[in-house]
Amino acid sequence: MLEIADARAEVLRHCKPLRTEHAALTTAALGQVLAADILADIDSPPFAKSLRDGYAVRAADCAGNCAVLQVIEEVAAGAVPTKPVGAGQATRIFTGAPLPDGADAVVMQEHATADAGAVRVIDSGVKPGQWVYARGHEMRTGDVVLSAGTPINAAAFGVLASAGKTAVVAYPFPRVGVVVTGNELVEANTRPKAGQIRNSNGPMLCAQTVRGGGLPRYLGIARDDFAITKSLLGEALDVSDVVLVAGGVSVGDHDLVPEVLKALGVTVHFRTVRVKPGKPLLFGTGPKGQLVFGLPGNPASAFVGFELFARPAIRILGGHAEPGPRTISLPLAAPLAEANDRPTYRPAQLVQGATGWTVQPLDWTGAPDLVGMQPADALLVLPAGDARADTGTLAEVVLL
Amino acid sequence: MLEIADARAEVLRHCKPLRTEHAALTTAALGQVLAADILADIDSPPFAKSLRDGYAVRAADCAGNCAVLQVIEEVAAGAVPTKPVGAGQATRIFTGAPLPDGADAVVMQEHATADAGAVRVIDSGVKPGQWVYARGHEMRTGDVVLSAGTPINAAAFGVLASAGKTAVVAYPFPRVGVVVTGNELVEANTRPKAGQIRNSNGPMLCAQTVRGGGLPRYLGIARDDFAITKSLLGEALDVSDVVLVAGGVSVGDHDLVPEVLKALGVTVHFRTVRVKPGKPLLFGTGPKGQLVFGLPGNPASAFVGFELFARPAIRILGGHAEPGPRTISLPLAAPLAEANDRPTYRPAQLVQGATGWTVQPLDWTGAPDLVGMQPADALLVLPAGDARADTGTLAEVVLL
Repeated sequence: MLEIADARAEVLRHCKPLRTEHAALTTAALGQVLAADILADIDSPPFAKSLRDGYAVRAADCAGNCAVLQVIEEVAAGAVPTKPVGAGQATRIFTGAPLPDGADAVVMQEHATADAGAVRVIDSGVKPGQWVYARGHEMRTGDVVLSAGTPINAAAFGVLASAGKTAVVAYPFPRVGVVVTGNELVEANTRPKAGQIRNSNGPMLCAQTVRGGGLPRYLGIARDDFAITKSLLGEALDVSDVVLVAGGVSVGDHDLVPEVLKALGVTVHFRTVRVKPGKPLLFGTGPKGQLVFGLPGNPASAFVGFELFARPAIRILGGHAEPGPRTISLPLAAPLAEANDRPTYRPAQLVQGATGWTVQPLDWTGAPDLVGMQPADALLVLPAGDARADTGTLAEVVLL
Repeated sequence: MLEIADARAEVLRHCKPLRTEHAALTTAALGQVLAADILADIDSPPFAKSLRDGYAVRAADCAGNCAVLQVIEEVAAGAVPTKPVGAGQATRIFTGAPLPDGADAVVMQEHATADAGAVRVIDSGVKPGQWVYARGHEMRTGDVVLSAGTPINAAAFGVLASAGKTAVVAYPFPRVGVVVTGNELVEANTRPKAGQIRNSNGPMLCAQTVRGGGLPRYLGIARDDFAITKSLLGEALDVSDVVLVAGGVSVGDHDLVPEVLKALGVTVHFRTVRVKPGKPLLFGTGPKGQLVFGLPGNPASAFVGFELFARPAIRILGGHAEPGPRTISLPLAAPLAEANDRPTYRPAQLVQGATGWTVQPLDWTGAPDLVGMQPADALLVLPAGDARADTGTLAEVVLL
């Protein structure tokens, strides 16, 4: 039985980023990771640009207060100046328009009064560069504006558009096949008969996969039959970078998954981790390097197993530098009174207090209790043994 | 010019949740908010269920050590017991299988040795209820398992499946129309000619919309022409719950948006907010209650304006109770030396330090600098005036 840290290290040892591909820059690419540096193909802005509506001037002409300048033309955004600004001259200019040659500053229109072809500048001390966004100030041709390894966030969409990109080379979202096992399972649209329960792990793991940056593919329920389970897991291995299989990974007579995986050429690296909920937790690698996670059948255990082991793997396959999860130390919002035989991840909620966030343990009855897990936006990390602690004690928290 | 808090209050005063609709429980519904309580249609588990592979027994039979019991049948998960367990009897049972009548506990197979139709229990002190998940322990028929107002997270998918739901009544994701204005703009696939720049706000605002829980619809670039702008904004109002229009909202001669909005029947509630970046920031409501946000043309200003004003509105329309954004107080990872004439939201990054998170201000040259804003996963909130502060000073942070 491995410790959590050792199990994570073993998983990560087998993770490497997927082969890159071209991704069109629709919002579907949000969260993909760039696989190549993005270079600016032009200066941005491509010209010295006015940051205000007003007048383009030579700063030296406006050293004193109340300079009066001759207005020689008007340039709106999108237009091009045709006349250089000479001594004693100004060009009426609008936000986003190119600065005319000769001008080196912009006076806001609020600081100027126009009158019959002339303008009186009432801005005292106009400085060169004032309200001008210099050519190439944000990026110069050839600059690396986004590095390989950058996740494409919303602001990156803007930067990529500025750099002229409509597609990029990126790591794909890993394809994640989801299989659940058990003769007792029926799907949500079915009323369970005697001895049956509804399959909650399938929908939950697909949703966790989306949140974790993977593309889920649900393959259905494998009955506790070697041939059926082999067929379904074989199909999952064919179409996936990562296979999640919930249930059937323990050591019982009906826990077929380890034998089936062996028959499919999967090398099993470990089968149990000292973690609660979720001790039976299998990790293997397939013939094409696919990662296989055998998660416990209890839904809260499957949930935690995914977050601690599968999600970090999906992140690395998807090109992220950090596997996560991110943890933070927060004071307890309520006392804790429990003891666990294993390191435990239990559901909790962040609470905005007067002096910052605190963490509130949620009522929860253990591994089969998904209703108690559902409101969690955090997992409280408790060491094995006596985990009693008073309100205010700092506790380690995984953000979901 | 409104203060930020007053502007937010004015926006929120006009926000109410959208009309609810049925949503199929595919992963596309992740993040939608339930509009009605979800009741359990059956007990869960629907029967007392074994939590281990082992033997179903009467605890009273195993009060001492080394009880020997007659094994009367075997029940796998998905099967149904046919014989009650009497005194001195046991049923071979597997995880997930129903507990037979008469039995009140399960002995793990690791604590039992089987031999020719009998089993010797070597578990000392078997307690009633041991390794049994009682019928209805997680949910009872008629229980509210998820309340109206709950965002559908990954664990909720599991709970909904347990409750037999394949569709729910939920608030739809708000439809967000995105228009950008300016004669100087060309799309990313075009090389700017003299006086032109590429449109970065369109792709960025669409991506922010997705992250904020809205469905973006990009309508294109409106040239600085009354009829064209009116046509495009009219179309946006027709198909949207929220309209974002970037640029053209200042007071310049070419800033047509306020006039066009008036002609389209939009009531403008405010036009400027004392915030940096992003002072020109318009908010209005259309004839059908559509919300209209006129954002500055500078991309970092548009970014911040969206996060502070449009995103909270999208959340409320989508049925969330809290508009956000969530803030947290964190120590500065580096000294700050700046002064601002307005309350300022500047890009920053969370840094995992030895004793918890700190916040690192990023290099940033101001409103037009989206490259400097891009790596931010947080905005540092600075008051107007002198914002000098030493490393370690607590600062207010908006998480992106």
